Amino acid sequence: MIGQLQEDARAVEAAARTRPDRDLEEVLATVAWNVIAEPGDGVAGALIGELGAVEALRIAGGRDGRLLPPGTRVRALEEALARWRPRVSAQAVADALIGAANAGAALLMPGDGLWPTAVDDLGVHAPVALWVRGDPVLLSAEPRVAIVGARASSPYGDLLAAEFAGDLAAGGAVIVSGGAYGIDGVAHRAALGVGGPTIALLAGGVDRAYPLGHEGLLREIAAKGAVVSEVPCGTAPTKWRFLSRNRLIAAIGDATVVVEAGWRSGSINTAGHAAALGRPLGAVPGPVGSASSAGCHRLMREYDARCVTTAGEIRELWESGVATSERSEIADPDRTRLLDALSTRSALPAQELARRSGLSPERVGSLLGLLELDGVVVRANGAWRRTPGGE
Amino acid sequence: MIGQLQEDARAVEAAARTRPDRDLEEVLATVAWNVIAEPGDGVAGALIGELGAVEALRIAGGRDGRLLPPGTRVRALEEALARWRPRVSAQAVADALIGAANAGAALLMPGDGLWPTAVDDLGVHAPVALWVRGDPVLLSAEPRVAIVGARASSPYGDLLAAEFAGDLAAGGAVIVSGGAYGIDGVAHRAALGVGGPTIALLAGGVDRAYPLGHEGLLREIAAKGAVVSEVPCGTAPTKWRFLSRNRLIAAIGDATVVVEAGWRSGSINTAGHAAALGRPLGAVPGPVGSASSAGCHRLMREYDARCVTTAGEIRELWESGVATSERSEIADPDRTRLLDALSTRSALPAQELARRSGLSPERVGSLLGLLELDGVVVRANGAWRRTPGGE
Repeated sequence: MIGQLQEDARAVEAAARTRPDRDLEEVLATVAWNVIAEPGDGVAGALIGELGAVEALRIAGGRDGRLLPPGTRVRALEEALARWRPRVSAQAVADALIGAANAGAALLMPGDGLWPTAVDDLGVHAPVALWVRGDPVLLSAEPRVAIVGARASSPYGDLLAAEFAGDLAAGGAVIVSGGAYGIDGVAHRAALGVGGPTIALLAGGVDRAYPLGHEGLLREIAAKGAVVSEVPCGTAPTKWRFLSRNRLIAAIGDATVVVEAGWRSGSINTAGHAAALGRPLGAVPGPVGSASSAGCHRLMREYDARCVTTAGEIRELWESGVATSERSEIADPDRTRLLDALSTRSALPAQELARRSGLSPERVGSLLGLLELDGVVVRANGAWRRTPGGE
Repeated sequence: MIGQLQEDARAVEAAARTRPDRDLEEVLATVAWNVIAEPGDGVAGALIGELGAVEALRIAGGRDGRLLPPGTRVRALEEALARWRPRVSAQAVADALIGAANAGAALLMPGDGLWPTAVDDLGVHAPVALWVRGDPVLLSAEPRVAIVGARASSPYGDLLAAEFAGDLAAGGAVIVSGGAYGIDGVAHRAALGVGGPTIALLAGGVDRAYPLGHEGLLREIAAKGAVVSEVPCGTAPTKWRFLSRNRLIAAIGDATVVVEAGWRSGSINTAGHAAALGRPLGAVPGPVGSASSAGCHRLMREYDARCVTTAGEIRELWESGVATSERSEIADPDRTRLLDALSTRSALPAQELARRSGLSPERVGSLLGLLELDGVVVRANGAWRRTPGGE
């Protein structure tokens, strides 16, 4: 395969013109993987992670089991080869590169200084390459907050999405969303409205306005922010690519906030990725009975999403790490003595705690009250137990 | 003090008539404590817990430091004595007993078969006695769910409180609330409306209709459910007694649900007690911007209240213990092998997990996906780490 590419003058020329700064073979192999593997193809990701794009492509192009990295199951690879082989084509690689050049889209590759390393948290499901219309620096600018939600949003959701995105963007946060109708579009527009940065992550190629009604909006985002996709130009958005795109939104956001979502909204999928990646996740509550808030309430119940109602509370999502460590520095020697006296296994009466800690029962009583408020101790049957991991 | 009581014919006669089944000295001492100590008086609670009501009263009536239980600080006791002494009166004890008899209120004492042991979780802050107009059995009937909220509720909150309380009461749950205007009243009425059981816990005596506008409602609750207070008949509801009453609502509820609450609502206080007692806590979301939902959103953020939007979700609050244990029994040997291979300290690549567990990389991949959904593992930089306490 790699040999075949190097013999295709059109592909070679386009690759050299697109990324004169990178190794030609590497550029060709990367775009080839981008063309043959669907987003998030774990076998491709594992193979590339193990061998690099060029060597991995040698295996993808051949049938030589001896080239497999140790631990790779031949059957999984054969299934993958069956998926990939119909797409192996130097012409497709050339088309992707030329299409991007025509659309004014840059190619970002792993190893680039501007490569958003946040997506590497996706492991074998990380994108092989990214196509960017606009400013690629935004993908690594901080903080980045994903604001997503229902296409069929309500005026209530639209109002809040606009308020939050505008406020956060005005404060310098990059608003990441999916370019869709409803909440996504409102969030992008609010960011643009305050002259703030915003990124639209598309499920199809960056040369395709999807939805068509957002052609103007996407053009404006490309001019003032960035329109990004992991699939080559000309690629249609499919159901699978929407779901895959959602993992990129979650990975690129330092935090993800769902403003409105139906029970089975695509935003639930995005939120699930954010939670799985360990990214802070927020959901905006709404009236019980509103179908477009049902998904948000579900996220709070099932995904441990934090209830957020203001831009400030959204900011806390990514600042919370700092806040927590600041708080734990408020040390009181008596508090420490009492914590030492407490057990996580058995509940002890206050009197016994006073004896153990050498503090007066009154001091123990007042400290227990404070520790209780902090969730560090719990009371049961008149005795006190330290909560595991409470402090 | 106890001697003084036993010499008061009016007190002795009323005590003997009220609780002929219990030791006379015990009844007199219990009511004496009920009269002299404010709700939740921790020194009184500690003293009674250590010595019993009768012996504790000997100390309260005297100044003999030698009688103190070990560990009691003389100063704390002296302060308490200063609080109590002005209230020590055989006449007040007789008045409490006679007032209760006139109001048709029963006296519940610790050690009674009908004593709601749930309140003992309050430790030294447990009530000394309870006065009940209506059916005292309800205090121990299961399940009991506290439904509380803002006095200044909105039609939205009223509608939901009525729906939830009616549904849960129809299913046999005892609806516990505070008898106030707004959410409390709606919850009580909804329970009565379906012929379901309900308990109103008052901050003042059970003979005092507070608020006055709920005189008819409280009479109906006393007739069909129970009106309960820890303060003697004739006692006015004060700010402190409202706050103290809130801890009883939280202790008596197997779970507490706040339907609507302002940012500084008394319901936040009730919820804080429920959380401190380790009782499941739910909050009903509402529109961002609605002042009467701000407290509920705060409870979700700061008190880890669970977001509840249906009666079924409220039921899960107290059933969740069962659900969790049921769930953990679904054991898959491969899953167990993979969990054994995972580390909580260092993230391992899937390939290494396959090697350690002896499972195929595909099986590892699919199991990791499931474990990730369950929150048992997290992915970072393409490697997998087991979350502490995840399973």
